[in-house]
Amino acid sequence: SRSINLAVIPGDGIGQEVVAQGLKVLSAVLPQDVKLETKDFDFGARRYHATGETLTEADLDALKRHDAILLGAIGDPSVPSGVLERGFLLKLRFAFDHHVNLRPSKLLPGVATPLAGQPEIDFVVVREGTEGPYTGNGGTIRKGTEHEVATEVSVNTAFGVERVVRDAFARAQARPRKKLALIHKNNVLTFAGHLWTNVFNKVAEEFPEVTTEYMHVDAATIYLVTQPERFDVIVTDNLFGDIITDLAAAVSGGIGVAASGNINPSGEFPSMFEPVHGSAPDIAGQGKADPSATVLSVALLLRHLGYEPEAARIEDAVAADLAERVGQPARSTEEIGDALAVRVAG
Amino acid sequence: SRSINLAVIPGDGIGQEVVAQGLKVLSAVLPQDVKLETKDFDFGARRYHATGETLTEADLDALKRHDAILLGAIGDPSVPSGVLERGFLLKLRFAFDHHVNLRPSKLLPGVATPLAGQPEIDFVVVREGTEGPYTGNGGTIRKGTEHEVATEVSVNTAFGVERVVRDAFARAQARPRKKLALIHKNNVLTFAGHLWTNVFNKVAEEFPEVTTEYMHVDAATIYLVTQPERFDVIVTDNLFGDIITDLAAAVSGGIGVAASGNINPSGEFPSMFEPVHGSAPDIAGQGKADPSATVLSVALLLRHLGYEPEAARIEDAVAADLAERVGQPARSTEEIGDALAVRVAG
Ligand SMILES: CC(C)[C@H](C(=O)O)[C@@H](O)C(=O)O
Ligand SMILES: CC(C)[C@H](C(=O)O)[C@@H](O)C(=O)O
Repeated sequence: SRSINLAVIPGDGIGQEVVAQGLKVLSAVLPQDVKLETKDFDFGARRYHATGETLTEADLDALKRHDAILLGAIGDPSVPSGVLERGFLLKLRFAFDHHVNLRPSKLLPGVATPLAGQPEIDFVVVREGTEGPYTGNGGTIRKGTEHEVATEVSVNTAFGVERVVRDAFARAQARPRKKLALIHKNNVLTFAGHLWTNVFNKVAEEFPEVTTEYMHVDAATIYLVTQPERFDVIVTDNLFGDIITDLAAAVSGGIGVAASGNINPSGEFPSMFEPVHGSAPDIAGQGKADPSATVLSVALLLRHLGYEPEAARIEDAVAADLAERVGQPARSTEEIGDALAVRVAG
Repeated sequence: SRSINLAVIPGDGIGQEVVAQGLKVLSAVLPQDVKLETKDFDFGARRYHATGETLTEADLDALKRHDAILLGAIGDPSVPSGVLERGFLLKLRFAFDHHVNLRPSKLLPGVATPLAGQPEIDFVVVREGTEGPYTGNGGTIRKGTEHEVATEVSVNTAFGVERVVRDAFARAQARPRKKLALIHKNNVLTFAGHLWTNVFNKVAEEFPEVTTEYMHVDAATIYLVTQPERFDVIVTDNLFGDIITDLAAAVSGGIGVAASGNINPSGEFPSMFEPVHGSAPDIAGQGKADPSATVLSVALLLRHLGYEPEAARIEDAVAADLAERVGQPARSTEEIGDALAVRVAG
């Protein structure tokens, strides 16, 4: 019989609330014969304040013994900026070699967008997750003086770029429109830009059916608000991917519905699934957070583990729920979770 | 009697067409007693193909002997990506220490925006122009092999950050709302991020009337499309500024009306004014380009040189022209330039 051994990291702020709904929907959607085992991990601000630890080797060992990880949100104003981001979130992505950061953007019927004219939006961003300006390479001299110099080094390797570009081409090949856009800034960041562009063009030869285009990241932000329907699959570097996926989320229904997967395609390490939004301390504990992004992240998780019908059922349930919201009073985090659980079970 | 000694760089693609209109409006707006002298410089793709040169020391010497520079656009698909950008545009910004890259965004009445609900948009981005990931620092080893490693080094100095942050505070102080947002990614790029944040907080003490906020660049893209009215003045690094000013242009009327100044506040070197848009080779020579962005760049140029009433007259003329476009057939580049020249003279 089948089983899912899931590591759960509720985290900070609204993380707890949304993850509870994600798990509720997960339990409701799984067939009887699938055994779901979950283990909670208390990472984030509380743990940091109590012990000074963010993510230890022992933690990584414990997490590694799971099929996948579901994360709510990590981050709190009481912790200096960067400590939990670098010490937990990025440390985990790097340790588990999550090099494919998958972020779908789909504007569902009935969902509000800040864009006029309700454009058709249905694309997926494949963001590199283990290189670029995120490596933590760099440093500071003469800190705090008027002669301070601080550097950040973006590190890009043919190995790292090729594997994520190949993943993106395969995804584009599998979609009806078969389009792939590379987003970079190769006219200014010429060293990294040429590496990305050359690798992209080389891998393109193996995928003759995929239509490709190149776009500078600044121009891409224009197209994301004026012609978002032009995108099908996008592949891009870690930092550009961070920036454009927030914009993509904003135009396609907001971060309340933006899901993501930090994927290790080889399966050597468990992949991690999390909403794109943060811990939103301003609304934490009030039942105001929309759990849809977490629930959609559970769908990505199920698809990754091979439960395609269940993933699709969750996505359909969220779409139906969103469509019915129009003109209705706001519901609590739990009410939305309950409604989704009923839908996926039914 | 007063005089303006202007270096003109029409450049590539639509650069020629839009600069001609910019100069037309400049001549029309200047009082009789101001002597305008212009000198054309043929930089860009033609020169590069003919001589292999992009910008020589002699060129810089010649440019230096002017009060200001007006540039159309540089760039052509026939030149490899990066050659003219790094060899001309960025070389000039760095050589003339254009550390304040000023980019106003104002959604004028009657102007179309991709955003629903016609929000109020009136902010200015102060983008650092001589540091960050734009320094060209970095390199490549094992180029073209499967073991290639390419790096890009973002270089940030207290000196460089403080002068641009101070400039932004002064601008915020002079505006009615007196608000300044720092945009960075200090939770990931912790070395540069902490430098920017510390300098920002230190300079803030000298401007107690200015309300400040900090925002990550990814979150900023969300606010730019959901709450653009929240921004007054933004200060940010070179690369983040590049990205968010294209997005800002897109939401506030498009790159057809986005002006910019590359300013050397000390006056040691001439400042350069240019539209945010590129050379648009696809529509070059067809009279389709909107010269408004160049004309508005001329207004920034005049303001920089102390011709405030003339700058305001140009801005009013463009606003009036844009408001009257609604429902009218499209006009040519020259027709728009003629109309603006008549307005500013009248
Ligand atoms: C919190 C931060 C480290 C993270 C990132 O920059 O990747 C977040 O913005 C995201 O997009 O997942
Ligand atoms: C053409 C390029 C070098 C330039 C930049 O990145 O600064 C452009 O995008 C701009 O914003 O002026």
